[in-house]
Amino acid sequence: MATAVKNEPRIKYGPQLDTNVPDLFDPQTVTPYTPPPAGIDNLGITSVDTFKVPGVGEFTVEFNGHVRVVRSKPTTDEWATTEVYTNLIELHMHGESPELGPIDVTLNHECLSTGMIRTPFDAESESQPAKACRMAVGAVFELPKLGLKLFNKEPVLLTIDDVRSIPPAGNPGKGQIYQMLPLYDVENAEAEPVAFLTSLSFRMGTYLTETPQP
Amino acid sequence: MATAVKNEPRIKYGPQLDTNVPDLFDPQTVTPYTPPPAGIDNLGITSVDTFKVPGVGEFTVEFNGHVRVVRSKPTTDEWATTEVYTNLIELHMHGESPELGPIDVTLNHECLSTGMIRTPFDAESESQPAKACRMAVGAVFELPKLGLKLFNKEPVLLTIDDVRSIPPAGNPGKGQIYQMLPLYDVENAEAEPVAFLTSLSFRMGTYLTETPQP
Repeated sequence: MATAVKNEPRIKYGPQLDTNVPDLFDPQTVTPYTPPPAGIDNLGITSVDTFKVPGVGEFTVEFNGHVRVVRSKPTTDEWATTEVYTNLIELHMHGESPELGPIDVTLNHECLSTGMIRTPFDAESESQPAKACRMAVGAVFELPKLGLKLFNKEPVLLTIDDVRSIPPAGNPGKGQIYQMLPLYDVENAEAEPVAFLTSLSFRMGTYLTETPQP
Repeated sequence: MATAVKNEPRIKYGPQLDTNVPDLFDPQTVTPYTPPPAGIDNLGITSVDTFKVPGVGEFTVEFNGHVRVVRSKPTTDEWATTEVYTNLIELHMHGESPELGPIDVTLNHECLSTGMIRTPFDAESESQPAKACRMAVGAVFELPKLGLKLFNKEPVLLTIDDVRSIPPAGNPGKGQIYQMLPLYDVENAEAEPVAFLTSLSFRMGTYLTETPQP
């Protein structure tokens, strides 16, 4: 079909979820080891990312922001066997670097960033296993001081291990980057990469307070 | 541009290369620490992949086959600073498993599988560094005994370290898989994953002998 569907991402890293589910803000009761009903989690997030710009330098930047994550209905009622699928539908993080200036990270809406929470294969015999969360993310990094907008073509794989409640609010996580993840210039998207993400550590925050829509 | 270009992949993991370069078969002289002219390498490859099929089991399968890799003109004449970009334009591997039956691995032509060879950032001060090769690959795994055709939506990242000649014929490499890489059923592509790749080790072979085209 040649007709573009509004907001239909060109690339999907996994299943697309129904967003017609409750929008969840603070306060919420999260019960450990219990599959929750479907919902959209509005959570804080912090991240420390390191960027390498060949010939210029390596820069580590702290980010602060929030995410909106759609969660599917769990596949079973049992913590040990259940699987939950996720779509990251909003991401806003802001950081400041003395050298690079301000950096804003948002989602690349050409991609559907998707993930899942399930029991790791090596813990399948446990009655109350810690679960693992993985999410493949397409992002845009805007650096107005440098007049640059960068994006990744290979997804950034964000993982959280030792998940004992859903959502894993407060859990630390990692970007699984082997040496380097190439970043491309939006204005010259078919050319060689201009920078690299070399490491990423993050921490999921807790539920946000709902702010009235303008 | 709305007009579809023939064979134009929907997803590109990096820059697309000119394939109008010499097609290289055995015998070739590969000189260590020397950037070679652009070309297409026809090389053997072997791989050991482990698949997890939830509820069924985990299966390790040995594969044997060949690849065709386009290499770009090196960005400089100097080994230490040069960068070479690659496109994997053909992949054929065959394996047999007692449980899963025969498995054929080919490229997913919806994706352009791309890579690069460059000096790792932590070796940039060395005069004759070992280089690193990385390639993001979209593949199709055909399992006729099970009537299944599987594909990955997140690229498989294949890496080769300690690269002292280009191409890195004979070098071992790894699929950088954190716990699991989801595989989807071509016939039900929007649904949940049906299997996972849990590990992958490979070894690049040497140049193939040219066989007359039928």
